[in-house]
Amino acid sequence: MRNGVDTATLFATLDAVRAQPEAAAFQFRVTNRWVSGTHSRGYVQGFFGVGAEDTSREEPFVLNADHPTVLVGADEGPTPVEYLLHALAACLTAGVGNIAAARKVSLHSVESSVEGDIDLQGILGLDPEVRNGFQGVRISFRIEADADPEVVAEIVQQSVARSAVYDIITNGVPVAVTVDA
Amino acid sequence: MRNGVDTATLFATLDAVRAQPEAAAFQFRVTNRWVSGTHSRGYVQGFFGVGAEDTSREEPFVLNADHPTVLVGADEGPTPVEYLLHALAACLTAGVGNIAAARKVSLHSVESSVEGDIDLQGILGLDPEVRNGFQGVRISFRIEADADPEVVAEIVQQSVARSAVYDIITNGVPVAVTVDA
Repeated sequence: MRNGVDTATLFATLDAVRAQPEAAAFQFRVTNRWVSGTHSRGYVQGFFGVGAEDTSREEPFVLNADHPTVLVGADEGPTPVEYLLHALAACLTAGVGNIAAARKVSLHSVESSVEGDIDLQGILGLDPEVRNGFQGVRISFRIEADADPEVVAEIVQQSVARSAVYDIITNGVPVAVTVDA
Repeated sequence: MRNGVDTATLFATLDAVRAQPEAAAFQFRVTNRWVSGTHSRGYVQGFFGVGAEDTSREEPFVLNADHPTVLVGADEGPTPVEYLLHALAACLTAGVGNIAAARKVSLHSVESSVEGDIDLQGILGLDPEVRNGFQGVRISFRIEADADPEVVAEIVQQSVARSAVYDIITNGVPVAVTVDA
């Protein structure tokens, strides 16, 4: 164990997927229920992976989302775009934990700050030249580890190169929307 | 008030931003601290908007993230990609609440299911042809409202057309990463 990562199991998992690539086909899911105004609750529980439906989570994770009061919400939870920034920081940080362990680097602390700039003239429909989403996102890491700064920087670089959320946010993914009313 | 939305304040906010477009410049932020392995905690509190730093949140929202046990995590929270799916559902649902209110449509229930397909051969580095992120995302809404199905479908369509998270996920946004080690 290093950094709380069971590297033997991590490498065994890699070997298992290499031997049976169909085990790598995953599907993640979230359900959501509107509460009131801009407040809704997400429920995160089952997913498909390693050829089967995962049933290990006995209860769903429940996530409240809302808009802040200045945007006519009730601030009952983070704003959806804040959840997206959190997803990015959490994905890159998980990768840093795993990759550092695989490279035998012990981490003492990993902190990051992520910020996204958004011009609300887009989503408010006030200026067709302004996009709805973030114009740019920046994430900065502060890491203390038993390794030279260049080695730590390479670990972050590798985490970026293998991050699902970084790929989705920088490259985009098709989203299909259907309605049953 | 309709659907829990204060439409008078919503329209007043639109007028205020139309009169002072610089009020629309927002910056959202999240900080993250690694805990162990793939487990980290996100902290969501301050943001900039309407020309000032928002200080209305007395405590941060704290969000645990982890990988599931089948992926050598401890399942201490949703997976980062699940947070991203939640962000999408929450953003579109908030839009449905606001837009329905603006169009004088009363909602009884809004539920959605979102799913994303991912081939982990990408993030595991086993196949360079496989992307790291979702190959596709689908979201389906089930809505009960005092309106014809076509009217409800148009409300969802308008929410998609004005969603920050939908724009980010479908079109991508540049992400800058820096490391201080």
